[in-house]
This record gives sequence, C-alpha cells and structure tokens, in this order.
Amino acid sequence: MNINNTKIFSMKKILIVGLGLIGGSYAKVLNENNIIPMGIDINQQTMQYAIKNNIIDNHNLSFDDCIKEADFIILGLYPNNVMTWLENNQNKIKPHTIITDCTGVKRKIIEKAQMILRDDLEFIASHPMAGKETSGIMNSSGDLFKKANFIITPTNKNSLEAIELLKQFALLLGCKYIEILTPEQHDEIIGFLSQLPHAIAVSLMNSHEAENYIKYTGDSFRDLTRIAKVNEELWSELFLSNKDYLISEINQFIIELEKIKKDIEEDNSESLKMKFSSSKAKRKLFDKT
Amino acid sequence: MNINNTKIFSMKKILIVGLGLIGGSYAKVLNENNIIPMGIDINQQTMQYAIKNNIIDNHNLSFDDCIKEADFIILGLYPNNVMTWLENNQNKIKPHTIITDCTGVKRKIIEKAQMILRDDLEFIASHPMAGKETSGIMNSSGDLFKKANFIITPTNKNSLEAIELLKQFALLLGCKYIEILTPEQHDEIIGFLSQLPHAIAVSLMNSHEAENYIKYTGDSFRDLTRIAKVNEELWSELFLSNKDYLISEINQFIIELEKIKKDIEEDNSESLKMKFSSSKAKRKLFDKT
Repeated sequence: MNINNTKIFSMKKILIVGLGLIGGSYAKVLNENNIIPMGIDINQQTMQYAIKNNIIDNHNLSFDDCIKEADFIILGLYPNNVMTWLENNQNKIKPHTIITDCTGVKRKIIEKAQMILRDDLEFIASHPMAGKETSGIMNSSGDLFKKANFIITPTNKNSLEAIELLKQFALLLGCKYIEILTPEQHDEIIGFLSQLPHAIAVSLMNSHEAENYIKYTGDSFRDLTRIAKVNEELWSELFLSNKDYLISEINQFIIELEKIKKDIEEDNSESLKMKFSSSKAKRKLFDKT
Repeated sequence: MNINNTKIFSMKKILIVGLGLIGGSYAKVLNENNIIPMGIDINQQTMQYAIKNNIIDNHNLSFDDCIKEADFIILGLYPNNVMTWLENNQNKIKPHTIITDCTGVKRKIIEKAQMILRDDLEFIASHPMAGKETSGIMNSSGDLFKKANFIITPTNKNSLEAIELLKQFALLLGCKYIEILTPEQHDEIIGFLSQLPHAIAVSLMNSHEAENYIKYTGDSFRDLTRIAKVNEELWSELFLSNKDYLISEINQFIIELEKIKKDIEEDNSESLKMKFSSSKAKRKLFDKT
C-alpha cells in the first residue's frame, strides 16, 4: 500500500463506468487500499456481483446521482462507447471533474472527446498495458497491473494536475513504467506491440483446421496463439480505429518474415543465424524484472 | 512413478549421448525412477556437472566402453551430429541395440541413418514436443515432458519391440499423447506447429529496433516473442532440414495475415469478427488440461 496515493484517492469520490476486466480490476486495487469506489454497468449480473462482493458502494444512489457525485470518473468502456457515454452524460457531471478512459486507441477518442466536452470538465486519456484473454468482472484482479506499463497521453488542453493524478493512480495500480506519450506516438507503438501480435496470433490459429493438430503441439504454438482467444467486439473496434498504423506494422512484419523465407530458400545458414542472434539479444531486454 | 516402465528401463543399460537440455532432462526423469544412466558429452563442464550431481554413472568406463556396454542409446544431439555420431561410433555398438534421437526433423535423419547403419542395429526416431528458450544441462528438468506430446516415426525397417520400447519411454517421461506418424507427416506438422511459430517470433522481434519499446510493452508481445530467444545453431539446422514444408507454411500464414489486412483496409468489421470468433474457438481446443 502506498500511503500518499491512498490519501489522494480516499479524498476523491471515484466513479468507475463499466465494470469489466479493467474497470473491475481498477476497483479491486482501490479495495485493497481500503477505498470502495462507486460503479455502474449496464449488465445487471455485473452490478449484482460487484455489490454483493463489496467491490463498489453506490450508497443507494441512482446511476445518474452517482455521476453527479463523482469528482474522478474512470471509463472502463470500449472505444466507441466512450464517446457515446460522454455525449449522453456530460450534462450531469460536476464542474472540474477529471475523466479518464482505459482504451487501446487514443487519437480517435481524444480528439472527439475534447471537442464535444464542456469547457469546465477535463478528459485525460490513459492506457494500462495489461490484459487477459478473458473478460468480465469475474476475471478481474487487483494484481493485473503489477509491474505492467502505464501510458498517459495528454494534449495541450490537459492540466498538470490531471497528469499528476493519473501518475499517482498508476503508482497505486503497481505499474512499473509510467510514460507520457502523444496520442500519435501511443497509437503507433500500440500498433506494433499489441495489435500486430493479435493479428499474428489470429492468423496463425486460422491458417489450418485446428482439430488435427492438438495431439502434436508443443508450448511454442500455445504461446503464440494464447491471445488468439480474442474478444471480437473489442478488437474489431481497436483494429479499425488504428488502421493506418496497424497496416503499416503488418507490412513491415511481412517484409521481415519474407527475409527469413529467402534465407531458407537459398540455404543461407549464416544469414539465418544472424537473425536468430539478433532476435535473441533483443528479446532478453524485454524480460520482466 | 510407473512401476512397469521402471522395471523395463532398470533392466537396460541406457546411454545418453549429448547431455544438453533434452538429454539432461531425460537423465533426470530416469533418476526420479531410481535409474542412473550412462552419459557422455563433448563438453567437459557438462560431464563434471552430470557426474557431481549423480545424474549419470559411467562406472569409470571410457566413452568408448560406455558405447560398447549400452543396449539402449538415446542421442541428445543436433540433427547433423546424429549422422556424424552414428558413422563414427556404430562399429562399437553391441548387436541388437536400439538407438533413438530427439531431433525436430525426421525425413533427412531417418533415411540416412537407416541407410548407413549396420544391419544388426536398429534406429527408431522420436521427438518429444517440449523445449525451453534456454539450453544446457543446467536448465534441464525432470518436469520438462509432463503432459507434453511425444511423436514416434517408425519406418518399415523398425520392429514392434522398438516401437513399444519408445512408447514405454514416453510414458515414463509423463507425456500425454504418444503418436505414431510417418517421417513426412511429422515434418509437415512440425513445420506448422513449431518452426513457423519460431520464424514468426524472430521476425516480430526483428521488425523494429527493440530498445525503444521496452517501457511500453504488455504481455502479448512478450508471449509472442518468448521463443525469439532461439538457439541459432540448432534452429538454422532445423529450418534448412525442413525447407519445403516450412516455406509452404510461411506462405500459408502470410495469406491469412493478408486477409486480416484486407478486412482492415475495407473497414470490414463483420469479417474481422468472424476471424476472431474462429480463432477463439479453435484456440480453446489447445488449452492444456
């Protein structure tokens, strides 16, 4: 527990909108710091689970009144729903409330959000680099963000206060690196580090009828296809919201794979070994420590 | 411990040639069943480690005398070294000794091995579908093969006795599925399940300068590149020994990835969702149970 962070957030009325894997995990981290946030979700079962397990406490307020009470709102929503929610609910929010999201695309959301939002509200976008191949509050965990990376993408419309609040929130989550990027930098990096791996895993899984191969597989194939268990609603949105960068990354990756193919075709053992040595050295830098 | 298996192997004089990750792990499984095999390795440090830790016991015999004594020889060697070792050492081996390997390519090895080998010796190829991104006896473990798959690739030159011996050995290792394939089937399947994932991991890792991305990465990228820490000597041999199947698999995979790219370019959300649903359903079949 970080006493300073806990103090900052225990003094705020926090509302989490969308209690899925990320929203639910955010709530559980707060719980571990003796803070019970307010929470709302369109799914009745999710609400029942969250209330029954004391993950949230709405003090018997209606959803609208929760929104009116909050002074820090976290949107645990899919990208397209962030905009719809802001349009439909911003009239209820208290002046000077800080609002963040957790989505994996930034350019599209930030531009629109900051355009439509009331002048006395502040939207600052953020993205915890953590996830699972499962979804929903039942799979949420206060450990999800331990040693993960956390990206904040402020624009010139954001205050230092809001940036600092998000940094403190990432520290509370247990994140390791907290990085400030432009929305463009974020989307380019995520195209490579997150979206391209998902496109690869899905393509690998779909390139054969799978049933015939179960009895022969090793862990390599399992590792490379773990994220092929993808949430189709969320990820189709993410892919299409970042199409320019993602297509560029797919093209770049295919070029690399074609280079290996050429080495094999030409029996170029030395060139293959150089590629393997390079990838081994690079990968070592990415081990979690 | 499986009492029947233990009995079979405790009655044999087992020699492991090459005490690396696989050979060392084989020895440790035998140790756990109270069997101390003979073992030889060209690396002095490996030999010292194996003797000091009672992983092997050569009864003070020379390497040549170990070979003469053995009636079950397991070659824990790289593909090209399997052939060299057999050529150089088969004159020392007792008649009727059964010899197996553990390499990840089969057509090339089996054809040559069975061609050059004395008529009174039997070579039967096998492949444990397990590995690590590390190598050497220091990283070996008796748990490496638990719930793994094990493939035996007999030809019409092999006896039922040898096939049965290898099946019993796989059971001793703790393998889950023990499958009989032709060398051709093995190499085709391994091209897809093992070699293609390695080609992908290496290409993904090499498609950008890595240092800039460490602070932003999540677990997806780490998962897909774990096996990019590839042993360059071994894997360049494996790739080049299976070039026809591997190239075909790379081509097939690129076709799938290009289909996703086309969906993105055309904003075809429905087609993307279908691919994601398909990959999710297929991947669930591969969970280890």
